[in-house]
Amino acid sequence: MATIFTKIINGEIPCYKVAEDDNYFAFLDINPNAKGHTLCIPKKETDKLFDLDEKAYTGLMAFSRTVALALEKAVPCKRVGVAVVGLEVPHVHVHLIPLNEMKEMTFQHKVSLEQEEFEAIASKIREQL
Amino acid sequence: MATIFTKIINGEIPCYKVAEDDNYFAFLDINPNAKGHTLCIPKKETDKLFDLDEKAYTGLMAFSRTVALALEKAVPCKRVGVAVVGLEVPHVHVHLIPLNEMKEMTFQHKVSLEQEEFEAIASKIREQL
Repeated sequence: MATIFTKIINGEIPCYKVAEDDNYFAFLDINPNAKGHTLCIPKKETDKLFDLDEKAYTGLMAFSRTVALALEKAVPCKRVGVAVVGLEVPHVHVHLIPLNEMKEMTFQHKVSLEQEEFEAIASKIREQL
Repeated sequence: MATIFTKIINGEIPCYKVAEDDNYFAFLDINPNAKGHTLCIPKKETDKLFDLDEKAYTGLMAFSRTVALALEKAVPCKRVGVAVVGLEVPHVHVHLIPLNEMKEMTFQHKVSLEQEEFEAIASKIREQL
């Protein structure tokens, strides 16, 4: 069965898309730790980051770097944090989180945004790519 | 002034070393989120992950993958999580955390280990490299 992320890639579930190439896809987390919290995923479903082969892993990390550099310019923050957890959705995803304080890394403090805010943030990040 | 991590690399501060090559160094976090929590760092001091140039970034991520694959074999866990935060020590460090539950990613629950346990874990990881 397709993961929720594969459904997002296929357009079956809507998302605030940030970036896409042949192998990778980036979109805003809809339950963000901070404004601009973005997920970077491989299009091919793999559960665990370290089960990706070397090429797919390196490609995902390079794609995430490109997105992070745009995110840093688009969203004011001290730095962009990275997290890969994956205990919930079995489809590798790299969290890129604009950080101002440690609590934004804990996944225990969430921010609420309106649809217009999500759209504006995604658009700002895309402009920096 | 040298960061605490540079002092560790230089042997001025002791550590439980896991791996080292010309450019990167890995050692156990002494205030771990979980048993086996490891830090991977570039030898050259840089504050932020996304300030590393492409080559240094890619090298650090490849080195971290090698360590993570050994860690997965050495320490029983559901998967190895990744975090890059850096709000405290201004020297890039990739956290590799053997995960069984989400709380191990929050940096709010720590485990205490004796020196002998640290040594045994570091040795086990090194054997898997």
